[in-house]
Amino acid sequence: MQPSPPPAPSSNASQQRRSWWGWGTEDKALPDAECTALGALLPGSAATPLSVPRIASLTLPEVRVTPPSALAHLMSAAPRDRAAHTYGKAYRDVARALHGDLAAAPDQVAFPVTEQDVVDVLDWAAGADVAVVPYGAGSSVVGGVEYRNTDRDADRHTDRYRGVVSLDLSGLERVLEIDRVSRAARIQAGALGPALEGQLRPHGLTLRHFPQSFEFSTLGGWLATRAGGHYATLHTHIDDLVESLRVVTPSGVNESLRLPGSGAGPSPDRLFLGSEGTLGVITEAWMRLQDRPRHKASASVLFGDFTAATDAVRAIAQSGLYPANCRLLDPGEAALAGVAREGQSLLVLGVESAHGPVDDRLAELVTLARDHGGSLAPATRGADDTDAAGTWRSAFLRMPYLRDALARMSVITETFETACTWDRVPQLYEAVRRELGAVAHKVTGADAMINCRFTHVYPDGPAPYFTVIAPGRRGEEVAMWDEIKSAAMQILGDHGATVTHHHAVGRDHRPGYDRQRPEPFALALRAAKHALDPAGILNPGVLFDPGSR
Amino acid sequence: MQPSPPPAPSSNASQQRRSWWGWGTEDKALPDAECTALGALLPGSAATPLSVPRIASLTLPEVRVTPPSALAHLMSAAPRDRAAHTYGKAYRDVARALHGDLAAAPDQVAFPVTEQDVVDVLDWAAGADVAVVPYGAGSSVVGGVEYRNTDRDADRHTDRYRGVVSLDLSGLERVLEIDRVSRAARIQAGALGPALEGQLRPHGLTLRHFPQSFEFSTLGGWLATRAGGHYATLHTHIDDLVESLRVVTPSGVNESLRLPGSGAGPSPDRLFLGSEGTLGVITEAWMRLQDRPRHKASASVLFGDFTAATDAVRAIAQSGLYPANCRLLDPGEAALAGVAREGQSLLVLGVESAHGPVDDRLAELVTLARDHGGSLAPATRGADDTDAAGTWRSAFLRMPYLRDALARMSVITETFETACTWDRVPQLYEAVRRELGAVAHKVTGADAMINCRFTHVYPDGPAPYFTVIAPGRRGEEVAMWDEIKSAAMQILGDHGATVTHHHAVGRDHRPGYDRQRPEPFALALRAAKHALDPAGILNPGVLFDPGSR
Repeated sequence: MQPSPPPAPSSNASQQRRSWWGWGTEDKALPDAECTALGALLPGSAATPLSVPRIASLTLPEVRVTPPSALAHLMSAAPRDRAAHTYGKAYRDVARALHGDLAAAPDQVAFPVTEQDVVDVLDWAAGADVAVVPYGAGSSVVGGVEYRNTDRDADRHTDRYRGVVSLDLSGLERVLEIDRVSRAARIQAGALGPALEGQLRPHGLTLRHFPQSFEFSTLGGWLATRAGGHYATLHTHIDDLVESLRVVTPSGVNESLRLPGSGAGPSPDRLFLGSEGTLGVITEAWMRLQDRPRHKASASVLFGDFTAATDAVRAIAQSGLYPANCRLLDPGEAALAGVAREGQSLLVLGVESAHGPVDDRLAELVTLARDHGGSLAPATRGADDTDAAGTWRSAFLRMPYLRDALARMSVITETFETACTWDRVPQLYEAVRRELGAVAHKVTGADAMINCRFTHVYPDGPAPYFTVIAPGRRGEEVAMWDEIKSAAMQILGDHGATVTHHHAVGRDHRPGYDRQRPEPFALALRAAKHALDPAGILNPGVLFDPGSR
Repeated sequence: MQPSPPPAPSSNASQQRRSWWGWGTEDKALPDAECTALGALLPGSAATPLSVPRIASLTLPEVRVTPPSALAHLMSAAPRDRAAHTYGKAYRDVARALHGDLAAAPDQVAFPVTEQDVVDVLDWAAGADVAVVPYGAGSSVVGGVEYRNTDRDADRHTDRYRGVVSLDLSGLERVLEIDRVSRAARIQAGALGPALEGQLRPHGLTLRHFPQSFEFSTLGGWLATRAGGHYATLHTHIDDLVESLRVVTPSGVNESLRLPGSGAGPSPDRLFLGSEGTLGVITEAWMRLQDRPRHKASASVLFGDFTAATDAVRAIAQSGLYPANCRLLDPGEAALAGVAREGQSLLVLGVESAHGPVDDRLAELVTLARDHGGSLAPATRGADDTDAAGTWRSAFLRMPYLRDALARMSVITETFETACTWDRVPQLYEAVRRELGAVAHKVTGADAMINCRFTHVYPDGPAPYFTVIAPGRRGEEVAMWDEIKSAAMQILGDHGATVTHHHAVGRDHRPGYDRQRPEPFALALRAAKHALDPAGILNPGVLFDPGSR
């Protein structure tokens, strides 16, 4: 065991001020002129961007609860803190923020800096009937960090809870311990991706969990939501990288044994992974690390036919070759990213190893793709930013900012991701394009752009990720989005596809989740919830309806 | 989807009559003369073998409950059925059976042939206050299929339950459906390993889950106990091969969605995996399959030093090369198997693929082993049964029969397996040999043979499997075994190692499990149990104490 150094200085990006209403940092948001230019590409969108409300002009609901004096130093009811912790970053969150709708703002934002602070906040909240919404860095796109009164007719003063606290874990950001021999580290849950990797880098180690939200999400958030990461195959979810968890529950601190594997009863960690803050607050985890990769290779393969491309991906997923990257862009997605000609699909393959050369493995993968009708895209080797894969990757990290710009132009965008077995893929792909296209047309009066990529692939099926873009009517964006979202969930359910592969359930996916979750398991989970959180204060409305008093 | 053929005819081995008291089939048990010869190799063992009681001479406790007439055709109270379902196959089970101690015999054995039969049995049992012990093929080595009154002073008529039924799932043995595209099959839980593989073979598919108990254990048993299988790396436990489960609980049938991956809340399947029959009875599962491997290669590497061998295994486990086999035998284990000279450790490496040649990967693995001081063992390539690896593999399947022969010679044998992070391995290995050796000496008065192998390895640690052999005193075998087992669990706990990596908790591992399981998780699991099994009839004493009425 070696002590870890203090947190590395934040990167330039995270030193910039975080946006309270939209993705990432304020400096990266598109200026008005670019929003307008972007909107002009989409017939039917608004002519001018919605302006971003100034904090000072926001109407925030009155503060109903104040912390006891012992906790006052951890809490803030400052308008900027409350506004920034009202929502996650789903489209409907951004749309509501842009329209100045902050009715769901928490009364207080708590900023614990120690685990004991977390315990103290929960103790107080349980006694005071205050709901607690755990908050990592707020990148939820499923309503996971927003308090929502399930009784829509009730006003704030007839609510089930006397108040709401957003529990911001970002003060717990240290790598506490490193076991170089076992390649594992004990890391606090509030560490953002770059801070975490920055503290591991001096040891030659990496977690290599790179979700799209990497810069603006935390280890604890990844764990609580079963986030999908860097790897397109094998260790796709953060779940597999967990050695043990430490979770503060209202019924005590739950710490599992550090183990490389075990068969002693149902896995304790698997109950908390995906519990989305409803069973406890994850404060630390021992995470499995890797040596930094020294060998990397990538290639991009074009297909004239999406079906052939799907077959190629299936063959690759079933080959046992386990590429680190295996992302398939359908023709619409590839065209949008500017990496393929009309009608072509693009498959981005990547292999990496800390151990030895990977070129042979890449060649095998490319051969498999060619056997299914693919052809190597031009300039597919070389520096990441000069090839098709690199182009797409840069666009990937820019996408949420573009989504926000479109939101300012009242363009509805919805992304939803799923997974299903291979036998269902053609029907699902077709149904989303046809049926969801029809719904989007009915709702918006325009033809929606509906694209798809496979972000992760398994031997028994892919994780398709759909994007729907259509011009909305100003002031009606949220209602229109809700209608499209509801239809999307229905289609997934109809085709045996999960309501989410790696974006979590939150509040937005509840209808689909409630249909998908087996009823006996629901009984068991509710019973577990009641045992761990008898006062029912933890993230009410996520996964379950809040229990009665 | 293709219909699957009817079950393939059983192999010769399983057509033989199953032993009611010991491992496997009666024809493979060692005859008296071989038992005596084996015992003679171990100074201090008995001079003559315990004789195997005849069924007719057994004293079975009286039958307390009879089924209602609607279920009578599913049930048997025949002495052979009751005797064969009294215990699993732990050493203490065999020892008790040999001494004719069948006080724990179930009142009835139920043989359902449909899922509805399972539902009906549970319905009746819940209403009649009858405990139900799910039974696959009875290979448990942890007291997982034995009813044990936790109040040791109570007699059978003051028991918490009015009777006990062993629920033998072996009638549910069909592969019901195959999805060739997604490489998955819907399989009934009672299918034995050979029957299951026999039904998959015509489709060119395989589950490739080969525990030592393969011939005499079922899919449902593997799932309920999180069994370890064929693969030494990556997909070590059956957990990873599960697409969905169907579980009959007293509160309804729980069927999860078939999914290649999901992030929708805590995994429903992971609650039932490892639940050991306490939350419900698994009746079916969709399992992920593989193409049959066409390319295989193996090599054996000798090390003069166990520490160097351990370092080699760690390097291999962290290399990302994922060998299918990576089993390290310490000097005692290698000597016992006759595959190494005094003091040498043996590492068996195997790679396999349905996709392409594996020789390069094997060469990389061997290079890694050589870099850590290993040298290729003679005749390490070629037919499985002519090399060191093959020799060891044959012995591996024979081991349980030898264990039984030793039991007949009143020799105590205890095998226990665990997992821990690499940083703890040297201390654990040393502690088991020194401290457990001391306990075994105190208990038996003789020097115990204590050997170790690594059966599975992970990037962050191995799964060591220890064998303890010492001559016992006739009539005191069970008490002696209990003392050694208790000390073994204590040592594991002291070193942060799990009480079991793939043998389950059952009743025998309860003390270690109770210490290891985080208390909030215990609260949650008990609450889940109560929600699913409100009458508390399912496998009482496993994982939890039976609840009060």
